[in-house]
Amino acid sequence: MQLNCPISQLDFDRITLGHGSGGLLTNKLLDSGVFSLLSNPLLDERHDGVVISWDGPLAFTTDSFVISPIFFPGGNIGELAVNGTVNDLAMCGAVPKYLSLSFILEEGLLMSEFWDILVSIKYACEQAGVQVVTGDTKVVEHGKGDKIFINTTGIGALHPRADIGKQRIAPGDCIIVSGHLGTHGVAILSVRQGLQFETQIESDTQNVNHAVTALLDAHGADIKLLRDPTRGGAATVLNEIARDTRLGIEIREKDIPVLDEVSAACEILGLDPLYVANEGVFMAIVEAGAASEVLKTLRNRPEGKDAAIIGEVTESHPRQVVLHSNIGGRRVVNMLVGEQLPRIC
Amino acid sequence: MQLNCPISQLDFDRITLGHGSGGLLTNKLLDSGVFSLLSNPLLDERHDGVVISWDGPLAFTTDSFVISPIFFPGGNIGELAVNGTVNDLAMCGAVPKYLSLSFILEEGLLMSEFWDILVSIKYACEQAGVQVVTGDTKVVEHGKGDKIFINTTGIGALHPRADIGKQRIAPGDCIIVSGHLGTHGVAILSVRQGLQFETQIESDTQNVNHAVTALLDAHGADIKLLRDPTRGGAATVLNEIARDTRLGIEIREKDIPVLDEVSAACEILGLDPLYVANEGVFMAIVEAGAASEVLKTLRNRPEGKDAAIIGEVTESHPRQVVLHSNIGGRRVVNMLVGEQLPRIC
Repeated sequence: MQLNCPISQLDFDRITLGHGSGGLLTNKLLDSGVFSLLSNPLLDERHDGVVISWDGPLAFTTDSFVISPIFFPGGNIGELAVNGTVNDLAMCGAVPKYLSLSFILEEGLLMSEFWDILVSIKYACEQAGVQVVTGDTKVVEHGKGDKIFINTTGIGALHPRADIGKQRIAPGDCIIVSGHLGTHGVAILSVRQGLQFETQIESDTQNVNHAVTALLDAHGADIKLLRDPTRGGAATVLNEIARDTRLGIEIREKDIPVLDEVSAACEILGLDPLYVANEGVFMAIVEAGAASEVLKTLRNRPEGKDAAIIGEVTESHPRQVVLHSNIGGRRVVNMLVGEQLPRIC
Repeated sequence: MQLNCPISQLDFDRITLGHGSGGLLTNKLLDSGVFSLLSNPLLDERHDGVVISWDGPLAFTTDSFVISPIFFPGGNIGELAVNGTVNDLAMCGAVPKYLSLSFILEEGLLMSEFWDILVSIKYACEQAGVQVVTGDTKVVEHGKGDKIFINTTGIGALHPRADIGKQRIAPGDCIIVSGHLGTHGVAILSVRQGLQFETQIESDTQNVNHAVTALLDAHGADIKLLRDPTRGGAATVLNEIARDTRLGIEIREKDIPVLDEVSAACEILGLDPLYVANEGVFMAIVEAGAASEVLKTLRNRPEGKDAAIIGEVTESHPRQVVLHSNIGGRRVVNMLVGEQLPRIC
């Protein structure tokens, strides 16, 4: 597998409108490395679509990624696009298998940047254990896009022990988060604002599908719901659960894992980590009796070493999320209104 | 089902960045009509992904749509996005079943335009017999997008009689097109250039999946390859087939169906209909002995009433597409170089 950028062999160093024509230039762009980099028997068919053997329930999810900047501390839009969709499949209780990959490129994008993004996509796919099997490339005029937007849509196989469904949630269930909250959003905002902290805050973008598979292998139906708190953050996920189940939710500030530097940055920036986007963290609603064992399983994995039980589902204050703060008070945590951080994913 | 635009009940008439936040405003946008308009039991789950019962081989394809203008004679970007992906599934020999739907909206897009596009999506789905089961909405700043980009990714069930594969193509096979070539591209270019013709040329955007199902029902393995000549047009499809099979292709200009007004417009605009994009036409490579029966089946359907056999696969001039012109000459038809018409789909 050659991973050297093929740009030196190309007669173009920037994307042009012709690369989206569907004709010779599109073929040249794809042949320049896209197909060899992401190669697998299904993709190598090079049809507009692909036929896949399948048996049993499948999970299906889509996400378009418009993050700005496209390169940020801890990652880039390519791996984010893979991890984001892989994680959404995991949240369905599924084992991710196949991705589609669709680019909307802005005329003028540097081939070297496109190549770096492709290489990240390749590695993220390998780490998650998924294959890109079909794709699409469009190019829009300079000023009609913003460098690169990526859509990934994924198919996964439902885990045989998964029984995910918000209708199964009951008072007493525990709320677990798999890691520190707020890291991704603060990393992006810091770089946008040119803020410097003692330690560089890096996005937490990573796949969580292997951690989820481990949980389902070990605890099956004790896992009642899985959600990844991306846009809108943990507060929005918890509010959606409270709204849909018509139950209450209580969380304890002291138990919510947030990195010290993220916490400090949030204070400076006037942000609440509960509303900040995450890209490598998930939340699980778990049967109370199994919660400590689930936590143990999760903490045994690198993605889950900072996992914590942060609260419970309650019969009281239905449809409301209530936070017990560090200074002893209680406050209602509402859903995110408006846009806290635009183009965070 | 209420199809009146809900704008009068909204406190916004344009898309704002907040509608892509993932929080309250995103929920408000989706609740304003998106979910009720496209409602089905799977979508109504409102999870980030969806679990679907499945058994047997599936087809999977993706396309992002960036057409400009978003409203054009004969259609809009919404129905184009549904038909395009539905048709790609049909080209795999599959019966389209489920779509994902992902929007990248530009801040400032009129809610009324968004609504009109959604309504078109709904009708196009009904006509094709598919359901939108999962989706995503992102918003980018004004000037970082162009009103609306749509990704649709589709899943279909392989037709039990389908045996589609370019390795099955052999000399003597016939090339059938299902309708007039060049109509979509010329319709878009006319409106962009402000050209007026006696008859308004309308895009041919339509689903062809029911026609393909009828062909596969009746003729099964005699259908060896299906392709829709979108970007790059029929010439690019034929060149890809010649390249991949290492066989030659001969086509006869006199047999290629092109509307008179499209032909006239192409002459004025200096376009070759063979390179112009189509959105409601497909090409089939068919076993020679079955070709006239396949043509009959196709012509019995409204989408195929203008279908024609336009040429054959040959052993001579491998990897080349040769056109027998109306005036008796022969010329090589190459793959489209560069961009004939940008943002045509």
